[in-house]
Amino acid sequence: MVEIGHTCLTDRRGFHLPRMTDTEWREFLIAGTRTGKLATTRLDGRPHVMPIWFVLDGDDLLFNTGAETLKGRSLRRTGWASLCVDDPSPPYSFVTVSGPVTISTDLDEMLPWATRIAERYMGAERAEEFGRRNAVEGQLLVRLRAEHVLAMSRVAD
Amino acid sequence: MVEIGHTCLTDRRGFHLPRMTDTEWREFLIAGTRTGKLATTRLDGRPHVMPIWFVLDGDDLLFNTGAETLKGRSLRRTGWASLCVDDPSPPYSFVTVSGPVTISTDLDEMLPWATRIAERYMGAERAEEFGRRNAVEGQLLVRLRAEHVLAMSRVAD
Repeated sequence: MVEIGHTCLTDRRGFHLPRMTDTEWREFLIAGTRTGKLATTRLDGRPHVMPIWFVLDGDDLLFNTGAETLKGRSLRRTGWASLCVDDPSPPYSFVTVSGPVTISTDLDEMLPWATRIAERYMGAERAEEFGRRNAVEGQLLVRLRAEHVLAMSRVAD
Repeated sequence: MVEIGHTCLTDRRGFHLPRMTDTEWREFLIAGTRTGKLATTRLDGRPHVMPIWFVLDGDDLLFNTGAETLKGRSLRRTGWASLCVDDPSPPYSFVTVSGPVTISTDLDEMLPWATRIAERYMGAERAEEFGRRNAVEGQLLVRLRAEHVLAMSRVAD
């Protein structure tokens, strides 16, 4: 996991972009119902990007997807993903996490994670319903390790 | 431009996902300060994803980026991008647009677009300031054609 601390990145035009600390980017990722935009590479080399629901477990982001969806097939083939979470309001902040993925099809392992993910995005009352919907045959539990983290706050300040 | 009309997609688990109409996905893309999460493919084949500001011009999405940034280099090399915009709150909706990109470095062409983009995201008062900041030597004006559009509303209903 690459962690750069509370420093500034200077872009090519000389503007200073403050990096988030380790604590800040974790809190940013798990705030509210922010979704991840998951980028994968298709078989023909073109990029693919779709929103996903996820939760954080240490340095790992966990999410479900269908084994035969485009992103499911791409993840299984390449073993790698990049995921972006942002705050789309001034002064704009974002975190992009990239790293290797490990994939499980074990439904006993999948159900508690699918339920936690559903609780984050649909609330406690509907967590079990959506957890059971998402932990079924044909679904994957994907664990993306945050090996590279780019986390910038207040980009447009 | 692929347009499917107001139909439903049925996922592999039998859940119906309503597609947006042509009018709906355009309105969704331009609403408020929603950002695009731009996915590109790196030289080594890995995916890259970053938030960008954009505006719509017919079937094209226009945005600026640095020629020597990772996404700038990837766009120049591959000529292709995929971009996702979503509403990260229940019942969740998203639009993913994919297609070829054309790139301009003409600053006279770039300045009015950079100013329109800045107006969307920073407001009329700061549009000129940010427009001038973003229409400079080393920056690109990128035009992404919405050749493929996947636009789903109320995914978690």
